[in-house]
Amino acid sequence: MAMLGYGFMGCAHSRALTVLQALEDEPAGTPRLVSICGRDPAALERVRARYGWESAVLEWRQQAADERVAIFDNAGPNGVHLEPTLAATRNGKHLLCEKPLGRNAAEALRLCAEATCAGVVHMCGFNLRFLPAVRLARELLEAGDLGDLVHFRARFLASSALRPDQRRTWRFDAAQAGSGAVADLGSHIVDLARYLVGEPVAVSGSTATQVTTRDGGPVDVDDAFAAVVEFAGGAIGTLEASRVAGRRSNVCAFEVDGTRGSLSFDIGRLNELELVTERKRSVQIDVTAPGHPFMELWWPAPGHPIGWGDSFVHELRHLLACVAAGRSVRPHGADFEDGYRCALVCDAILKAADAGARHEVPPP
Amino acid sequence: MAMLGYGFMGCAHSRALTVLQALEDEPAGTPRLVSICGRDPAALERVRARYGWESAVLEWRQQAADERVAIFDNAGPNGVHLEPTLAATRNGKHLLCEKPLGRNAAEALRLCAEATCAGVVHMCGFNLRFLPAVRLARELLEAGDLGDLVHFRARFLASSALRPDQRRTWRFDAAQAGSGAVADLGSHIVDLARYLVGEPVAVSGSTATQVTTRDGGPVDVDDAFAAVVEFAGGAIGTLEASRVAGRRSNVCAFEVDGTRGSLSFDIGRLNELELVTERKRSVQIDVTAPGHPFMELWWPAPGHPIGWGDSFVHELRHLLACVAAGRSVRPHGADFEDGYRCALVCDAILKAADAGARHEVPPP
Amino acid sequence: MAMLGYGFMGCAHSRALTVLQALEDEPAGTPRLVSICGRDPAALERVRARYGWESAVLEWRQQAADERVAIFDNAGPNGVHLEPTLAATRNGKHLLCEKPLGRNAAEALRLCAEATCAGVVHMCGFNLRFLPAVRLARELLEAGDLGDLVHFRARFLASSALRPDQRRTWRFDAAQAGSGAVADLGSHIVDLARYLVGEPVAVSGSTATQVTTRDGGPVDVDDAFAAVVEFAGGAIGTLEASRVAGRRSNVCAFEVDGTRGSLSFDIGRLNELELVTERKRSVQIDVTAPGHPFMELWWPAPGHPIGWGDSFVHELRHLLACVAAGRSVRPHGADFEDGYRCALVCDAILKAADAGARHEVPPP
Amino acid sequence: MAMLGYGFMGCAHSRALTVLQALEDEPAGTPRLVSICGRDPAALERVRARYGWESAVLEWRQQAADERVAIFDNAGPNGVHLEPTLAATRNGKHLLCEKPLGRNAAEALRLCAEATCAGVVHMCGFNLRFLPAVRLARELLEAGDLGDLVHFRARFLASSALRPDQRRTWRFDAAQAGSGAVADLGSHIVDLARYLVGEPVAVSGSTATQVTTRDGGPVDVDDAFAAVVEFAGGAIGTLEASRVAGRRSNVCAFEVDGTRGSLSFDIGRLNELELVTERKRSVQIDVTAPGHPFMELWWPAPGHPIGWGDSFVHELRHLLACVAAGRSVRPHGADFEDGYRCALVCDAILKAADAGARHEVPPP
Repeated sequence: MAMLGYGFMGCAHSRALTVLQALEDEPAGTPRLVSICGRDPAALERVRARYGWESAVLEWRQQAADERVAIFDNAGPNGVHLEPTLAATRNGKHLLCEKPLGRNAAEALRLCAEATCAGVVHMCGFNLRFLPAVRLARELLEAGDLGDLVHFRARFLASSALRPDQRRTWRFDAAQAGSGAVADLGSHIVDLARYLVGEPVAVSGSTATQVTTRDGGPVDVDDAFAAVVEFAGGAIGTLEASRVAGRRSNVCAFEVDGTRGSLSFDIGRLNELELVTERKRSVQIDVTAPGHPFMELWWPAPGHPIGWGDSFVHELRHLLACVAAGRSVRPHGADFEDGYRCALVCDAILKAADAGARHEVPPP
Repeated sequence: MAMLGYGFMGCAHSRALTVLQALEDEPAGTPRLVSICGRDPAALERVRARYGWESAVLEWRQQAADERVAIFDNAGPNGVHLEPTLAATRNGKHLLCEKPLGRNAAEALRLCAEATCAGVVHMCGFNLRFLPAVRLARELLEAGDLGDLVHFRARFLASSALRPDQRRTWRFDAAQAGSGAVADLGSHIVDLARYLVGEPVAVSGSTATQVTTRDGGPVDVDDAFAAVVEFAGGAIGTLEASRVAGRRSNVCAFEVDGTRGSLSFDIGRLNELELVTERKRSVQIDVTAPGHPFMELWWPAPGHPIGWGDSFVHELRHLLACVAAGRSVRPHGADFEDGYRCALVCDAILKAADAGARHEVPPP
Repeated sequence: MAMLGYGFMGCAHSRALTVLQALEDEPAGTPRLVSICGRDPAALERVRARYGWESAVLEWRQQAADERVAIFDNAGPNGVHLEPTLAATRNGKHLLCEKPLGRNAAEALRLCAEATCAGVVHMCGFNLRFLPAVRLARELLEAGDLGDLVHFRARFLASSALRPDQRRTWRFDAAQAGSGAVADLGSHIVDLARYLVGEPVAVSGSTATQVTTRDGGPVDVDDAFAAVVEFAGGAIGTLEASRVAGRRSNVCAFEVDGTRGSLSFDIGRLNELELVTERKRSVQIDVTAPGHPFMELWWPAPGHPIGWGDSFVHELRHLLACVAAGRSVRPHGADFEDGYRCALVCDAILKAADAGARHEVPPP
Repeated sequence: MAMLGYGFMGCAHSRALTVLQALEDEPAGTPRLVSICGRDPAALERVRARYGWESAVLEWRQQAADERVAIFDNAGPNGVHLEPTLAATRNGKHLLCEKPLGRNAAEALRLCAEATCAGVVHMCGFNLRFLPAVRLARELLEAGDLGDLVHFRARFLASSALRPDQRRTWRFDAAQAGSGAVADLGSHIVDLARYLVGEPVAVSGSTATQVTTRDGGPVDVDDAFAAVVEFAGGAIGTLEASRVAGRRSNVCAFEVDGTRGSLSFDIGRLNELELVTERKRSVQIDVTAPGHPFMELWWPAPGHPIGWGDSFVHELRHLLACVAAGRSVRPHGADFEDGYRCALVCDAILKAADAGARHEVPPP
């Protein structure tokens, strides 16, 4: 395994690989950590040493060509998703690429098309699918416990970019990031919408850029959006994400309403799922009880919460199992087609906001 | 005082008048309950007797012409807001009309224009403004505690119309109701948006009618909508209401995000307001503590919740005080101009959904 | 009806009588409000006028002798529970006496014995029994939904007496109050323990007086206690009350655990009851939904919370119905025997704390 | 490092050692995992292999004598705390022993005395101290933010032993376990009481054994207790633990009230601490925000919850740092004296319940 990126996501993935080592008696695979790649040698070396990567390299091409590498994990910024991942694909590596898959749907389509042709296992890093409560939500929905779906609403609210004196990183530059809150936070909830409810067919909405200049340079991406979404199945709902949402941080919440019940989730209490199947009786499910998704990997008694970082443990475990078995990461993992379809919705939101008109999500 | 209507709202207003009698040592006015009007004599008589109205009449024209009547309270269905209220206006009565003010903005405009010309005190029944936590939210926003406003989101979710075998009352008939969830539930949250954040300038969104036939007759109103709203001040957000939201009932919640903090409210816990002014520190304010809005009317010690019905007590008390003083119910009460401006937004939502395009809210 | 007292409880009862007038189509009885009694003429007159009592009297003997009075409601301080209530009893009045019934078990016994002999309807004002969620808890327990009861814990936490500069009212004087937190707050949770779980048979514990001097005078009552309680049925648990509990105010919460499930309640969210009948699935019941206790008196749709003051509405309605029917207020109302048995437990707590030894609750 | 035990705690410690490897750039020490000890060879081998212990041994004497071993971690059942830990002490090993330190205060005293004499680093496994919210509570209390402490209440509620058909493990045998809920769950909250409030000086209370026979054998330990506690500083409060608490599982909650504020914590939401410093304003602190205890070890952005198992990561990291520095684990770690003092309180609770009298906690 080789990894590109050593920032927030690079560490999250690396930590997950460490935890994975000792998660099970018979793991699907314990990867050799061949190399980690980044641009700042000193910082890279610290991360390499901490997580036990065998070598640090400054050039991703080296990883893509490395014969010892079977899986290429792209945990870098949006702007380096396309080229390195394509290179790895062409060398037959199995793939994990952080979300969003590309800076736009066109990039995502190239990645999806080539990975599919190459016949490798490919996964897009929508880690929220691997939270026990989210998996349980999906299982309840699949079992029909909520009936026909009527509404979906999700919001991902941060305040990380509220202060104008904050540094203008790549996240505020369209050339590097594609878009702002749409790509960064919105892609997560668009993926959840697809995973839980089905395909969005039309969107309308607005974007806003509250802070237009940082570090003397212009901000040319949105820092918030609000959208209305219509689903193929007839449900309607809202999607909303912001980097400037007051003093909130990392509110990532969704609600689903069906003809027979409703569900609610908030990442702040990630071990809980709320289920309403009778009026005014809300069932708070603590997913740490045995029998819930992923709980066979954890503690023998209920009531012992797991953490956010453990979603990556479950995600990478799933990837390794799929690679070992030579099968697709679907349906519970997001593959590159999911990454592409998500990008189609994100692009449609941007276009709808720009045009001031409902925009149909084009067929893939 | 005379009242039209003896249903849910007629009872809510009547009960408030009863409670008002003994609320204060020196009330602004204790109205004489001259007459109540409705169509079903037996049911009307029961309500009349219960709340102590002096007489029951079957014809609102009688009330509009009654010289003993100084205030006409229209708590009837949407379809009888226009004519009776106009008649009362022309006879110089002060006015309270339940929301929505009319079946559409045109009706609301007529009511607003005539009431303004007549020089009477006029109020539109947006009772949620009179919940202590909502008033507190407004005070905090006015004081600038949240800085410049960035986002607003509100949802009003019911499941009252989910079952197709439910009776097709006037609420499902466009001719009588104007619209469905938009007029009934949406008007409440549009008013809250205006009260708390300011004027919406553009909307986009979708409506849906999940149950299209009831009692053999067609349903020609929406039973849910989702909208994106842009405010004059630059904030963006979402508005959402539904009569078919799974098993939820009476979820009426809003959130405001500003550059210096965030607020959250949910009517299910109506004595609480959540305030976030530091990241990851959420302050739950119990508004029953002395010093909070309206609390001088209630108990000497904190921790004694009041009920939803008490919003009408505060609302009617405010109306009586304004009538006694001969002044407008603004800014804390909604007057007919507020009712009209709210209707402009509701109509814009319907048009935007219909046209599949962002719709600017026209200037009044 | 005649009432002694015009303070917090006097107002709470008076307000309830006002609300009762218009609660139902066919009320069990609409009492004539003959007289209200107190010592400060000016303050008394304000309360009299506000609630519509026909006359204000300075001497309770006048009320006890008044032939127009059928029900005597003693809402005065603990120290005037005994004599006036006895006098009313001897004149054949039906009785409502605020909790605690007496300053100690001996007083409560006299009241209970005489009221029983006199054959009048008698009620002790444990209003918490008349909150919908508490009634529902009792119904679930009676139906056996929780199996055999194993634990009960309750706490009533206030901070009203935390500041030493607070006035030394009768509540801090043993001669007038009997005891402190035990009588005032503890009696409420002892009554809930009895209502929900059954008879306590033994107690142990500690009391504390954090602030020993006020206004230059000594405080000779407890301002907090903590007790362990053993029930006849085998359950064990804790009872705790305080007037000096940090910055908490009016936390009144209980939990019941049985072999088949658990219940939780907190007065701060008095329209909710939490039920756990499967591990790690907690059901939040919103008792405002139709079909729940008392809800036939309120709104036609769920999700409209009622207030704390409405517990008195239910309590007085129950009393009037029992007086009209000539029957005991039991089992849902607390009668004077309940008041006496509660006093036996409170006295046992004080003795156990004093002696440093478990104290058996004596049989009545 | 060598470990005794491979059950729930053995795995929790082993997992923590795995996670520790990659927690920091410059860890205080990365221990060599020399051997793990247990009785069932097959089960032991699975755990050994999973966590990477170099060897599995069936005899703890071998570990105590092993010269490669610097730290002996006793994660076995209560009944094997004394002998193996003493043996390791005598061989100069540094020590981590799971709670309760011994089956009773006498055993704990021996362990404490010998470890102190031996001059080794010793730690008792009260892992809850290493939850960020608990550490923050301690810091707030130390800083005097709550003023003088007035009340403490804690409960640890499980339902693991509710079903009579549950196997009679060592936990139900006084000879092996010492006591039941008191030793197992009670020791945790007694330690929290000491860590947060100070030394208990007297206790009273009751124990109960709801299920008296399992597997044909008698249960000779308590399965629940409720106690009142008096602290040296004047605070009073309650402690309660149960293995038969209805359907609750792993409710571990405490509340502290001081003259200037109150604190609440519940392990089910372990990333949150509630602080009340103004009446009816409750501040929910999300301890995942940067700057909170231990957060420098985790994610760069707030809102990413950690899990229960991470308390052991922090605990073992602290132990390794103290061993490296040759200093005591106090004040934030519990050492053997803490384990002994905790045992004195637990024994006092059992004696008080037995005697039906308040029992003073003897000086150590």
